[in-house]
Amino acid sequence: MSIILGVDPGSRCTGYGVIYQCNREISYIDSGCIITNTSELASCLKLIYTGISKIIKKFSPNCFAVEQIFMSKNVHSVLKLGHARSAAIVAAINYDLPLFEYTASQVKKTVVGIGNAEKTQVQYMVRMLLKLSINPQVDASDALAVAITHHHSTQ
Amino acid sequence: MSIILGVDPGSRCTGYGVIYQCNREISYIDSGCIITNTSELASCLKLIYTGISKIIKKFSPNCFAVEQIFMSKNVHSVLKLGHARSAAIVAAINYDLPLFEYTASQVKKTVVGIGNAEKTQVQYMVRMLLKLSINPQVDASDALAVAITHHHSTQ
Repeated sequence: MSIILGVDPGSRCTGYGVIYQCNREISYIDSGCIITNTSELASCLKLIYTGISKIIKKFSPNCFAVEQIFMSKNVHSVLKLGHARSAAIVAAINYDLPLFEYTASQVKKTVVGIGNAEKTQVQYMVRMLLKLSINPQVDASDALAVAITHHHSTQ
Repeated sequence: MSIILGVDPGSRCTGYGVIYQCNREISYIDSGCIITNTSELASCLKLIYTGISKIIKKFSPNCFAVEQIFMSKNVHSVLKLGHARSAAIVAAINYDLPLFEYTASQVKKTVVGIGNAEKTQVQYMVRMLLKLSINPQVDASDALAVAITHHHSTQ
């Protein structure tokens, strides 16, 4: 058994999802979003770093799975995402969690079955796979999908 | 008086420079490089984060100055630099150091007098301004130049 923390970093909202894995079964523990609605870089990174650190302290996950950044042509967006992603990874490193990275296409293929699935399809399938009564928020759903992808890769 | 920590982040080598500022005078304390010659992201970020944390613990700087990333067309390079830069900033945030950012052009203009100066000119002027007997290593010199730029901006 193990506890997987999945993270979908963003400069405005960083989604997280925690799942419990026992043999081939998974179940939902927690999910949510760290809102970083600030243009100040230091404040934004502090919110992500302390937010992820708190989640790790609370749920003691065994590993940390994170989505790789899509290399868009907008270099400014890529830099903002890189900053946010690194702050989350540094929090995980501080707790000696092993890091696993997955592309958006790998995550969608695992959860929905196709690499170019819509976000709403991911949301729906995450809800089904984790037997949730309502759809999780979009960023939280993406983070749960990353955690589910890591579970599948270990099977 | 205050102690300024300047950092020039890089995915392979992160330069740092520590200077002492008293009124309009500055003097050299320490400088060097954190070598991160690894292709593994987690190891690279851990080296930068723990390296900068150690320097902060040792010299107790009052502020943290860092170079802004030049927006090149190579999005992969920008992402790597963004990751490295964020790991260094998160270390500074953890010690509640205020963050100051300067463009490469601001740094060169302050130290050499022209915004498009060569690295060797920066190295030479850093050596002169801090009364060093030999040229500091290039990345350490760039970090010291960022610290000197912050000193100038406070005058």
